[in-house]
Amino acid sequence: MPFRFDVDREGIERRLDEICAGYLSDLPAGIADAIRYGLKSPGKRLRPLLLLFAYRAAGGTDDASLLACAPEVIHCYSLMHDDLPCMDDDDMRRGRPTVHKVHGSRTAILGGVAMIPLAVRVVRDSAQSMRLPRQARTQLLETLLDAGGARGMIGGQLRDLAGEGLSLSLEEREGIHSAKTGALIVASVRMGGLAAGGGQAQIAALERYGRAVGLAFQIMDDVLDVTSTTSALGKTTGRDAALGKSTYPALLGVDGARQRAEVLIAAGLESLGQQKMLTQELSQVANFMVTRTS
Amino acid sequence: MPFRFDVDREGIERRLDEICAGYLSDLPAGIADAIRYGLKSPGKRLRPLLLLFAYRAAGGTDDASLLACAPEVIHCYSLMHDDLPCMDDDDMRRGRPTVHKVHGSRTAILGGVAMIPLAVRVVRDSAQSMRLPRQARTQLLETLLDAGGARGMIGGQLRDLAGEGLSLSLEEREGIHSAKTGALIVASVRMGGLAAGGGQAQIAALERYGRAVGLAFQIMDDVLDVTSTTSALGKTTGRDAALGKSTYPALLGVDGARQRAEVLIAAGLESLGQQKMLTQELSQVANFMVTRTS
Repeated sequence: MPFRFDVDREGIERRLDEICAGYLSDLPAGIADAIRYGLKSPGKRLRPLLLLFAYRAAGGTDDASLLACAPEVIHCYSLMHDDLPCMDDDDMRRGRPTVHKVHGSRTAILGGVAMIPLAVRVVRDSAQSMRLPRQARTQLLETLLDAGGARGMIGGQLRDLAGEGLSLSLEEREGIHSAKTGALIVASVRMGGLAAGGGQAQIAALERYGRAVGLAFQIMDDVLDVTSTTSALGKTTGRDAALGKSTYPALLGVDGARQRAEVLIAAGLESLGQQKMLTQELSQVANFMVTRTS
Repeated sequence: MPFRFDVDREGIERRLDEICAGYLSDLPAGIADAIRYGLKSPGKRLRPLLLLFAYRAAGGTDDASLLACAPEVIHCYSLMHDDLPCMDDDDMRRGRPTVHKVHGSRTAILGGVAMIPLAVRVVRDSAQSMRLPRQARTQLLETLLDAGGARGMIGGQLRDLAGEGLSLSLEEREGIHSAKTGALIVASVRMGGLAAGGGQAQIAALERYGRAVGLAFQIMDDVLDVTSTTSALGKTTGRDAALGKSTYPALLGVDGARQRAEVLIAAGLESLGQQKMLTQELSQVANFMVTRTS
């Protein structure tokens, strides 16, 4: 199944262009170039789409495409840092040289850090143009910053690096993934629900769905690292095995890993169904997780 | 003149201990240790003191010591990143090995980034316990994040690195300093004024004072890099000349640089006087800037 959602993805790309044009103009040129390169790298825009689709599923009717870019800004900064020589030391990302390969490590670090207040500005401005109540604004900001913080993404990344070459249990591995990748995905659907003024039960269902999608995404990343080629995936494959990471395929086999992802997705969709939020687009994104080939 | 303010500094150290005990406990051990090491490094706590003193000068009477730690958290994170091998590559800071020397570059980068949402939590919690109006909370957060962002500290650091080995004019050099060091110092006094509910003219006077203090501080940093020794200063001296930076002493001579700092401080104090906010402690901190020896 191809990953389409063309109209929404185009809308998001336009918003990212606006962010690059409007928010970076007064920065030092080097840092602005690195941020632009990192943000406009070709990507699936999974987090913005999830935010948009969750927003609509929870009853939102406004244009949430600027808000949807906020988790993508945080995601792109994390990729810039992940690829650094002192982190995963990756030269290729999404089929292009990584940010530090083009702009140097200094600029990749500083540009990455600068993207945190940039994401805050995106939330602020979009919440204002959507005329969201003040409480929702605060919750949106807190959700995004918590996911990007030490208990979320950063902590997961550190534990992932610390686990290289160690034999981890499935629970340990899932804990790392849910912090590293899952926190921001859960934050994206939660932000969609919050912006739409969704109730507590709706937000909780979206979060369950987000956790399932996030974990399935990571499982399939592991699977593709084994089954795909560098050119098809646009980044170096076979690295996990080389780094001695205890991946899902290593723990469960390729078929067992796929199966686990499918079970997770089914449970996530069921949570949405119970709240009458199982829209076609949320279902399609989830199913894409287990069928994607890149 | 010694830098005393013993009672306030002890209060700030206690609050930093509380932050280390209460906010880091659920983080991965490696990251928590690095943050603790960076935060509890012996320092003058200039930014917290400035926030406290500005708060009192603007009429605040509550305990603002937790809020005062927020800019220090941002400051300490910036030091962790500044010292990295791909940045200034410094081994010593405040008389101790730098964070990446002890905990590695990965942890120094991730721990540093994690301190941004940590500072946000400190602002949030202190504003709540001080029962500040919601508008003040938002302004406090925005002030802190703007100062730490790409237009403030990070942009200044990048331009500073870019200027190494180049011959810069005094204006260019002051622009870099005001972004790199000054932005967070101005933010500290502004936050003090905002938390106290100060009026627009009071906040503006505090900001003028902050800009003067920040620039004088940086000028004296340059001067001490020439005139002091590594052991007295607790960090490597003579580095600026080695890196080919166009420092104040290089541009104006040591005496000329000192004189410029004195003129700046006098003007900053005058701004406070016009708003009847020239307290003894704000005056002492400012004068310490031009008399300090480490």
